[in-house]
Amino acid sequence: MDIIYLLDLIGTFVFAISGIRLAARTDMDVFGGAVIGFVTAIGGGTVRDLLLNSHPITWMADMTYPMVILAAVPFTFLMGKKLNNFSKTLFIFDTIGIAMFTIIGMEKALSFGLNPFMAGTMGMISAVVGGVIRDVLCREVPLIFRKEIYATACLLGAVVFYLGLQINLPDNLNYLLTTGVIITIRTVSVKKSLSLPKMKA
Amino acid sequence: MDIIYLLDLIGTFVFAISGIRLAARTDMDVFGGAVIGFVTAIGGGTVRDLLLNSHPITWMADMTYPMVILAAVPFTFLMGKKLNNFSKTLFIFDTIGIAMFTIIGMEKALSFGLNPFMAGTMGMISAVVGGVIRDVLCREVPLIFRKEIYATACLLGAVVFYLGLQINLPDNLNYLLTTGVIITIRTVSVKKSLSLPKMKA
Amino acid sequence: MDIIYLLDLIGTFVFAISGIRLAARTDMDVFGGAVIGFVTAIGGGTVRDLLLNSHPITWMADMTYPMVILAAVPFTFLMGKKLNNFSKTLFIFDTIGIAMFTIIGMEKALSFGLNPFMAGTMGMISAVVGGVIRDVLCREVPLIFRKEIYATACLLGAVVFYLGLQINLPDNLNYLLTTGVIITIRTVSVKKSLSLPKMKA
Repeated sequence: MDIIYLLDLIGTFVFAISGIRLAARTDMDVFGGAVIGFVTAIGGGTVRDLLLNSHPITWMADMTYPMVILAAVPFTFLMGKKLNNFSKTLFIFDTIGIAMFTIIGMEKALSFGLNPFMAGTMGMISAVVGGVIRDVLCREVPLIFRKEIYATACLLGAVVFYLGLQINLPDNLNYLLTTGVIITIRTVSVKKSLSLPKMKA
Repeated sequence: MDIIYLLDLIGTFVFAISGIRLAARTDMDVFGGAVIGFVTAIGGGTVRDLLLNSHPITWMADMTYPMVILAAVPFTFLMGKKLNNFSKTLFIFDTIGIAMFTIIGMEKALSFGLNPFMAGTMGMISAVVGGVIRDVLCREVPLIFRKEIYATACLLGAVVFYLGLQINLPDNLNYLLTTGVIITIRTVSVKKSLSLPKMKA
Repeated sequence: MDIIYLLDLIGTFVFAISGIRLAARTDMDVFGGAVIGFVTAIGGGTVRDLLLNSHPITWMADMTYPMVILAAVPFTFLMGKKLNNFSKTLFIFDTIGIAMFTIIGMEKALSFGLNPFMAGTMGMISAVVGGVIRDVLCREVPLIFRKEIYATACLLGAVVFYLGLQINLPDNLNYLLTTGVIITIRTVSVKKSLSLPKMKA
């Protein structure tokens, strides 16, 4: 199995968990949790596919995605508070997930003939829109607009990935490098509590 | 006139009313009420059509839908608090509405070649997304994620409908049976105050 | 350069500013401001293009739009509170912007064969949906549903524009007349504090 595909599925699983857990904190029922998990995991790719006019939408053509997301529901439910002990693991896989979503989204956009700026934007949309929809449905001001270097990490990863394409870096090396950059930026920014400057009202 | 089409229009009308009334409670003006009524009534079908890449979007191709929705605005405005006396009637037609939306959405998805799982999901999306958008625009945590067996009734109805197709049940009987199942589940769950278990945070 | 195109770009710039400023008041960081500015400026046109199945989406095919929006971020950041001194100018250009968005959206919808009612709806969607998404992301009940004759001005402008087309008014005159009607209605309604009646709950 393709390693990118596998990591994409793991990212999907971890994204779904993040949605289900926020739903639980928002006092939703199991169905609400499943839906929030679903839209968190597939929201970004869906908006990207609609904007690109790429049909069928990825998760509608490959049942593996819905299955992985559905599996996240009992998993999160059964693990309960124990998941707090794995917050570092979840953080790592969430970050690998946004790296995968960025790369896959960007490759798809480039294959549709978009210029690098647009393709990077599509990569970032793939990575962050699911979380934004999750936060809106749970009535939070979207997290990524308030703190943490998150989307910025995706954008910088997109730049690295594009440069890698330009110098004909072997694909696997380029994937590795891009993912490394995104993980490093996000990890350092969380450890050092770095954040972007606030806007002045 | 096709009975399914007629019930679909009645469902559209009742959905619009539910949106307009929530808008009124959220202190919106008449225009806000009309828009919320509109998106409540057509939101689910629109998202389904976009996901399926089915154009033109249903309500853009058949003016009857916008007309029915527009008619709901003065109707709700003139009825005012008197509508509270008809809450049981509204409940019944709202439930018939989600049954129609589920069936129509599922048939459409199957005609686009989706598998039964995906088609059931599309049926449920048709039935519930309008209400979710309504609640988000009115700054409520979407009702269906918090209480009431609602989307679950649609999903179970979708299963029944699919089984009916598999055993070649005559269409009208299948419609009737599916609608009956959805109405029964929802009515019983409301009467007995049944709800899905909450997630643990 | 086409005057309509120029005014459309100015409208885009001013819409982006309105998004960035609301993001700043919502305590977002610079990235959040950029995103909110972006979706405010392109949200309406994007939803219109998706509904019409018009691809590529306008801003994905013409880099001028993203560039104008990106330029609004440092501009708003650097101007800061000084922008309060220009609220009348911003108001005028915002109103010219909704007039342009209405006209362009309506022309596009008519070119796709939609009837006048639908085309007017598409014009209004082009003009107001970006602001609605902005407000939802910033957790406000959308402004246009609560006060001010705003969308109504677009709708009346759409009627005028359509009548102008029917009597074969020269395009430029029709643009001017429609824009004049929209500006007049909105300006008068703000000056006289006119608003639509509230719904009764």
